[in-house]
Amino acid sequence: MSVELWRLTATEIVCKIRAGECTVQEYAQSLLQRIEARDDAVQAWAYLEPKSVIQQAEALDAVPLHERGPLHGVVIAVKDVIFTKDMPTQFNSAIYKNDAPQLDAGSVAILRRAGALIFGKTTTTEFAATTTGPKTKNPHDPKRTPGGSSSGSGAAVGDFQVPIALGTQTGGSTIRPGSYNGIYAFKPTWNAVTREGQKIYSLILDTLGLYARSVEDLELLAEVFAIHDDTPHPKDFTIQGSKFAILRTMVWPKIGPGSAAAMDKAASLLRAHGAEIEEIELPEHLNDLPAWHDIVLRSDGRTAFLPEYAGAKNDLSDELAGHVENREKISRKAQLEAFDRTSAARPVVDAILGQYAAVLTPSVPDEAPLGIEKTGSAAFCLIWTALHVPVINIPGFKGENGMPIGISLVAPRYCDRHLLAVSKKVGEVFEAEGGWRRALEWTSSKL
Amino acid sequence: MSVELWRLTATEIVCKIRAGECTVQEYAQSLLQRIEARDDAVQAWAYLEPKSVIQQAEALDAVPLHERGPLHGVVIAVKDVIFTKDMPTQFNSAIYKNDAPQLDAGSVAILRRAGALIFGKTTTTEFAATTTGPKTKNPHDPKRTPGGSSSGSGAAVGDFQVPIALGTQTGGSTIRPGSYNGIYAFKPTWNAVTREGQKIYSLILDTLGLYARSVEDLELLAEVFAIHDDTPHPKDFTIQGSKFAILRTMVWPKIGPGSAAAMDKAASLLRAHGAEIEEIELPEHLNDLPAWHDIVLRSDGRTAFLPEYAGAKNDLSDELAGHVENREKISRKAQLEAFDRTSAARPVVDAILGQYAAVLTPSVPDEAPLGIEKTGSAAFCLIWTALHVPVINIPGFKGENGMPIGISLVAPRYCDRHLLAVSKKVGEVFEAEGGWRRALEWTSSKL
Repeated sequence: MSVELWRLTATEIVCKIRAGECTVQEYAQSLLQRIEARDDAVQAWAYLEPKSVIQQAEALDAVPLHERGPLHGVVIAVKDVIFTKDMPTQFNSAIYKNDAPQLDAGSVAILRRAGALIFGKTTTTEFAATTTGPKTKNPHDPKRTPGGSSSGSGAAVGDFQVPIALGTQTGGSTIRPGSYNGIYAFKPTWNAVTREGQKIYSLILDTLGLYARSVEDLELLAEVFAIHDDTPHPKDFTIQGSKFAILRTMVWPKIGPGSAAAMDKAASLLRAHGAEIEEIELPEHLNDLPAWHDIVLRSDGRTAFLPEYAGAKNDLSDELAGHVENREKISRKAQLEAFDRTSAARPVVDAILGQYAAVLTPSVPDEAPLGIEKTGSAAFCLIWTALHVPVINIPGFKGENGMPIGISLVAPRYCDRHLLAVSKKVGEVFEAEGGWRRALEWTSSKL
Repeated sequence: MSVELWRLTATEIVCKIRAGECTVQEYAQSLLQRIEARDDAVQAWAYLEPKSVIQQAEALDAVPLHERGPLHGVVIAVKDVIFTKDMPTQFNSAIYKNDAPQLDAGSVAILRRAGALIFGKTTTTEFAATTTGPKTKNPHDPKRTPGGSSSGSGAAVGDFQVPIALGTQTGGSTIRPGSYNGIYAFKPTWNAVTREGQKIYSLILDTLGLYARSVEDLELLAEVFAIHDDTPHPKDFTIQGSKFAILRTMVWPKIGPGSAAAMDKAASLLRAHGAEIEEIELPEHLNDLPAWHDIVLRSDGRTAFLPEYAGAKNDLSDELAGHVENREKISRKAQLEAFDRTSAARPVVDAILGQYAAVLTPSVPDEAPLGIEKTGSAAFCLIWTALHVPVINIPGFKGENGMPIGISLVAPRYCDRHLLAVSKKVGEVFEAEGGWRRALEWTSSKL
């Protein structure tokens, strides 16, 4: 083979397989080799069984051409809080060790039907609900966290072990690892994709997240998940002449030098490419959005983790047991106020976001911090999760230690395809001129 | 045995077992005999395996006294859209025929841990999402529907085949069968109980529902599910001197003679017992609440049933396929408006409901209609589901054909325990003086 198949995006491999230039088995083997070379350093996997991967690949190669789906042969890793029929689902919890309900999550069922090869399960923090890191290391610096809670999914895509991975986001669990690992991360509009079979932390916040190394790949997935806006997305979006906004948000005091510089550079680049940039703020009465998110989250955790608490309290982390016991003594009144005020904020913020091609806002305070014990701060992600709007992390910038930093683009609810179309053009600029490039040299030498 | 154990409520059997007056096995045998005598007529079960019931009962009898939970030996039936580790879960869908993910729903896990005996799976309409009835018949008249979508759960409790059953409600799927079968039905505040492992139709509407033949039993369950109000519920609530409201709602034109008479009688009875009754209306700007519910429901069905549509479209009912295809052409704009306006209505309605001990409103238009093909109208339940408030159907009235009719009591969100305390006293009056009594004669003769 002249090209290392593991380097390809999903869109590229789909074309190659369709053209008969390689088989799904060859592709899967290439990824397995990549993982064999890199797994000691990154440790992205909670479960991976090469034999069953090859069996799936063989089965896909045997599918007649006319019966193949749009994702035929695309390899997808699945965060270990999402059910998979043929693999265990353990939530990084001793309570579910070796548990394997024979069940595909709704998202996994849709992907399989479209021809995807569900490769393995990636690491997560406990129930995707704490900030205590799993074993996984940042592929760009093993002394640093890949972020969380979708730690393994972010690291695996960032390390070219798979082209696509599923994550989840309740606070910043999809976008933060996107930034830390230098990849695209897409949190669609809340409930645009089914969350059937995905562990519940908060019904009103939990969202499936998608990782890829190109926006085309995210568009491929959006199509399979039938994510459609009211109006067809622009086929010919240009930065030149478009209007963007910069929104530093009420949590700006938490910003670090890396993301502050990235925000400035992002604005300069878009201006240099002919965009108009406005600086905007959210209305003052929304300053408590992060506090409301926190109240809703803890209150929902009170409901969500009662089954585990009732059955195996000692195997549940103290933080989650605290939710169930309502140690913060959050009243139902406070819970409902936070819930209702967040609800009321959604149409208000939609109207503001809708005035721009997209709004730029930090993904994270800075590059991935040192150490894998903690997964970093989700401060800049929380409000967007609570507001249900689509968010895409666009890589391209770097911090003081050379680690990747991304910037989030946000748009009103159910303008997902519009946001993807805009992100494609913005991503081209940020990746080309933002200052950070995926360093493949060190990886090639190992293979 | 001097008493037929199958006649007892959960609270009664808990005391009997605790006192050593009977074993769980004897109790389970009694219920199995009752079912054997009645199953041909009612057909409430989607899955029931007497052998494994007896095994569970034996295991419970072997639990040392000091390790027994508050529901020790209580038999509970589970609607077949809720996962059970040891039984199939089929959703009344050919797609999941014989499917048995080895997994307990969060609610089932909590109940088991409290000592409940999970008896079997009860019938449902397809995915609890259509109004096409399953095989089940109303225990009070086999020519009539038991309602839906929690058809089997409502019928089984109404027919004394189990004391407790789990249902779900997205429109009127818990309350309506409660009224039709002459039992208590409790839809707690949305998200007060985990819906982990319960098939999703709409994240923002789906709620676990509980059936029993006494309010004490519902309180027992509320305690196990850790449903707590901000303030302790009144221990000594009296109807005398309390203020109730009658709320006919914007769907009153759909009322039939049975529920109209029941509403009048309910008000008269409460007045006769010393309550003050006001007639109230919701603000006019909420007149479209039923329409908003419909839009949210269909839009959420678009997301919820895509996995089944993608994988097995021909085995999905045309109605649900229509949701996925968005045949009604509901725009995202309309969907969000309906979602946001419903959200905005919640605190408004809470404030109104909070002025009364409880608000009385119809559960259904009338007694259970003839035929089992359709499960009846949910018109009077929809707005309360959308508003997230707790609702309890209180039996006691009867229609022109002698079938049971219940009245709903509603209260603000997270005033569930308050509502139960009020319902206990109201239920005593309605059951004693409302005009309908459970006719056990015809059942005794069979056993």
